[in-house]
Amino acid sequence: MIHPTAQIGQDVTIKEGVIIGDKVIIEDNVYIDYGCIIRENVHIKKGSFIGARCILGEYLMDFYKDRTNKLHPLIIGENSLIRTENIIYGDTIIGDNFQSGHKVTIRENTKIGHNVRIGTLSDIQGHCKIGDFVSIHSNVHIGQKSNINDYVWIFPYVVLTNDPTPPSGKLVGVTVDSFAIIATGSIIMPGIHINEDALIGAGAIVTKDVPKETVVVGNPSKEICSVRKIRNRITGEPVYPWRYTFKRGMPWEESDYETWFNNLSLQEGD
Amino acid sequence: MIHPTAQIGQDVTIKEGVIIGDKVIIEDNVYIDYGCIIRENVHIKKGSFIGARCILGEYLMDFYKDRTNKLHPLIIGENSLIRTENIIYGDTIIGDNFQSGHKVTIRENTKIGHNVRIGTLSDIQGHCKIGDFVSIHSNVHIGQKSNINDYVWIFPYVVLTNDPTPPSGKLVGVTVDSFAIIATGSIIMPGIHINEDALIGAGAIVTKDVPKETVVVGNPSKEICSVRKIRNRITGEPVYPWRYTFKRGMPWEESDYETWFNNLSLQEGD
Amino acid sequence: MIHPTAQIGQDVTIKEGVIIGDKVIIEDNVYIDYGCIIRENVHIKKGSFIGARCILGEYLMDFYKDRTNKLHPLIIGENSLIRTENIIYGDTIIGDNFQSGHKVTIRENTKIGHNVRIGTLSDIQGHCKIGDFVSIHSNVHIGQKSNINDYVWIFPYVVLTNDPTPPSGKLVGVTVDSFAIIATGSIIMPGIHINEDALIGAGAIVTKDVPKETVVVGNPSKEICSVRKIRNRITGEPVYPWRYTFKRGMPWEESDYETWFNNLSLQEGD
Ligand SMILES: CC(=O)SCCNC(=O)CCNC(=O)[C@H](O)C(C)(C)COP(=O)(O)OP(=O)(O)OC[C@H]1O[C@@H](n2cnc3c(N)ncnc32)[C@H](O)[C@@H]1OP(=O)(O)O
Ligand SMILES: CC(=O)SCCNC(=O)CCNC(=O)[C@H](O)C(C)(C)COP(=O)(O)OP(=O)(O)OC[C@H]1O[C@@H](n2cnc3c(N)ncnc32)[C@H](O)[C@@H]1OP(=O)(O)O
Ligand SMILES: CC(=O)SCCNC(=O)CCNC(=O)[C@H](O)C(C)(C)COP(=O)(O)OP(=O)(O)OC[C@H]1O[C@@H](n2cnc3c(N)ncnc32)[C@H](O)[C@@H]1OP(=O)(O)O
Repeated sequence: MIHPTAQIGQDVTIKEGVIIGDKVIIEDNVYIDYGCIIRENVHIKKGSFIGARCILGEYLMDFYKDRTNKLHPLIIGENSLIRTENIIYGDTIIGDNFQSGHKVTIRENTKIGHNVRIGTLSDIQGHCKIGDFVSIHSNVHIGQKSNINDYVWIFPYVVLTNDPTPPSGKLVGVTVDSFAIIATGSIIMPGIHINEDALIGAGAIVTKDVPKETVVVGNPSKEICSVRKIRNRITGEPVYPWRYTFKRGMPWEESDYETWFNNLSLQEGD
Repeated sequence: MIHPTAQIGQDVTIKEGVIIGDKVIIEDNVYIDYGCIIRENVHIKKGSFIGARCILGEYLMDFYKDRTNKLHPLIIGENSLIRTENIIYGDTIIGDNFQSGHKVTIRENTKIGHNVRIGTLSDIQGHCKIGDFVSIHSNVHIGQKSNINDYVWIFPYVVLTNDPTPPSGKLVGVTVDSFAIIATGSIIMPGIHINEDALIGAGAIVTKDVPKETVVVGNPSKEICSVRKIRNRITGEPVYPWRYTFKRGMPWEESDYETWFNNLSLQEGD
Repeated sequence: MIHPTAQIGQDVTIKEGVIIGDKVIIEDNVYIDYGCIIRENVHIKKGSFIGARCILGEYLMDFYKDRTNKLHPLIIGENSLIRTENIIYGDTIIGDNFQSGHKVTIRENTKIGHNVRIGTLSDIQGHCKIGDFVSIHSNVHIGQKSNINDYVWIFPYVVLTNDPTPPSGKLVGVTVDSFAIIATGSIIMPGIHINEDALIGAGAIVTKDVPKETVVVGNPSKEICSVRKIRNRITGEPVYPWRYTFKRGMPWEESDYETWFNNLSLQEGD
């Protein structure tokens, strides 16, 4: 069932049981697997893959009042790979080269940059911003009003919260600065600011802002050292700031961070 | 595919790919979105919305023995809003004005009151009781034998456990009294009793009963103060007991708790 | 839609909307519920039940390069009970009598023994090994390179991690020896070895190897006692090692562990 107003590009594959709604735009070379529901005003850019049974352009709360859809566009960037059964609401923009695991939920008013990865079962609650090259692993919960800058890593079962004294309705989001890492199962309290290159150890309950390049662990979390003290368990070498030791999937993959960064500055100086 | 014994009311919307089984009752003005599977003996009361690909009346263990369905009715109250891909078993009763997020699982022998909300990915393990006006956020796990009273708030990634020394098969459920709040990621040990208006801080591992109006935090959790000491981070005002400071979605929304409560007592006194 | 090369046995039930791909083998007495997608080279052994909308033989990363499926077989053992909406990748072997909850994900290069149970929402990340008679409860995350031996119990929201200093790409898996128990919400740090009959208390952040028959709790976890000191809260009797006090679903269900074990040794001695 493809709505007559939908625009479908060239070399588009649409498998059985797909529903495509009013004013949907599907660019060239997109693949839509079995049973996807693409509601209305969804724009999928070229080369993207939409896994089986995704629901794109999911209804916001205003749908349920009179059961008619209002205008809430969703844009999905080029060459995205969205695995099965993702639910992505309207009023959301996702950049190019997005990759997601299975059963991810992304609610309304989410702005996601380029080259972002979000793992299986993660739940992005909307009204939040995620920068470029952010990697969010499985089963992460990003509360409303969160602000995640570029090159942040978030590991399984982390929660970014927002209501300091619930239920209050007075939400203050978490801010995570570039290059910071939040390890498995940490809970970040409402309004906390995690500064650049900080490392939140697994299982930390973070009740205070975390300074730049600082490691915190524990419940409640305490500062234990500079990230520069942490060594790779196998090689014995320093690991952090990680941009000098890790490249896979990063824009400096072909050279190294410094070379890439210096070229970037040169280009910007042009 | 609508079974001939199913009773369908007036102004019911049934989208493509829906399966409706034997002796299902669908009251007036219900909306059933794409691809729902409504097995047998399910009763959906008037005005409810069932999101895409929900499975209602899911099989209990006895189905798998001989692959025939036994009698396990499911009742869903009026004006409920069940989002996509919920799985709700038979032998369960849900009250009016229920709201759920996506991909919620509710197993057999669950009794849910009126005006309850359950967030995305939450997993209600059955054989438990949830009162009226309870708000359960995303990805909460409610173990069997839990008993949650009215007006309780439970935040993301909380687990209510039940086997003190697993594996033992000797389950003792958690009891949560009215107006208590369990913040993000807390684990409540088997058999624990959380008393009225208590506040379990985020990340607490609760190994002892929590007295009325008491705040506990930490691993293992310790009492730190009375809830009356906690202040709103933005306004500086006291927050708890929250029924005096929060109204949205509550029966006292139009006035305030005291006025509402006094009227209630008057009516009951009639 | 059944591919002409698929081999379907006797007494097989295939409900509406099922897709069965190239070279799939379905043995006798299998039941495939509504809307399952069985991609290619999947072999389902006799007597198994596949719940509604499961995806079996899910694509690995190499599919997305040129959108053609490569050879990645999946084998599902006899008499398995896979509940709705599981996603199981190719290059995986699952033993007999497997049981899973809803919405479980199992990725490539997972080897699962016989009589294993995995609960709702659990996420097995692949490149790992799970022995016989392992019970994994809801919403557990098993990282790559994990090695779980026979008769292990893992409770809700546990995470087995693998990258000690992320992001590093140098993964070291967790090893869990036979009869160990990991209680709710514990996080096991990369490379940790949990020895036989150890008990990890709920909410423990395990940063050091755990000796045989030892209980650890806390963040970071500390040894508190021998498992032999722990008593059942209701009966007051010792509980651990649990194989002497618990039988349900175990091979010694009809007698007791010692009798069964002695018979086993006799048989092996034959
Ligand atoms: C993809 C996946 O599934 S993997 C997920 C990604 N990886 C992770 O989540 C794990 C990340 N690693 C961490 O969080 C680590 O705790 C780090 C990096 C913060 C610290 O690691 P290391 O420097 O190797 O610490 P090390 O193991 O040497 O421990 C030093 C001390 O700190 C303690 N400690 C270490 N980590 C923690 C922690 N997370 N919480 C509390 N205490 C900790 C140790 O118990 C030890 O204490 P002691 O001196 O009293 O014996
Ligand atoms: C919808 C969503 O996604 S949001 C989810 C809902 N919101 C939440 O889960 C967060 C709820 N808030 C909490 O749990 C808070 O911890 C509260 C309300 C219990 C306490 O908050 P406050 O009174 O603001 O505590 P405050 O930040 O002033 O800290 C006081 C002390 O307690 C410690 N502390 C505060 N919270 C915790 C905690 N959860 N665990 C351990 N220690 C804590 C602080 O580190 C501080 O210690 P110090 O005196 O040694 O410096
Ligand atoms: C299917 C489901 O949903 S249920 C899931 C399965 N069940 C679970 O996850 C719970 C398993 N039980 C545990 O983890 C328990 O903590 C055990 C078995 C490790 C210890 O339990 P018990 O021996 O009964 O401990 P008990 O309650 O007597 O407490 C003894 C002390 O240890 C502390 N303690 C107990 N458990 C923990 C814990 N998990 N973490 C930190 N401290 C703990 C207590 O606070 C107490 O401290 P105190 O002496 O200072 O007062």
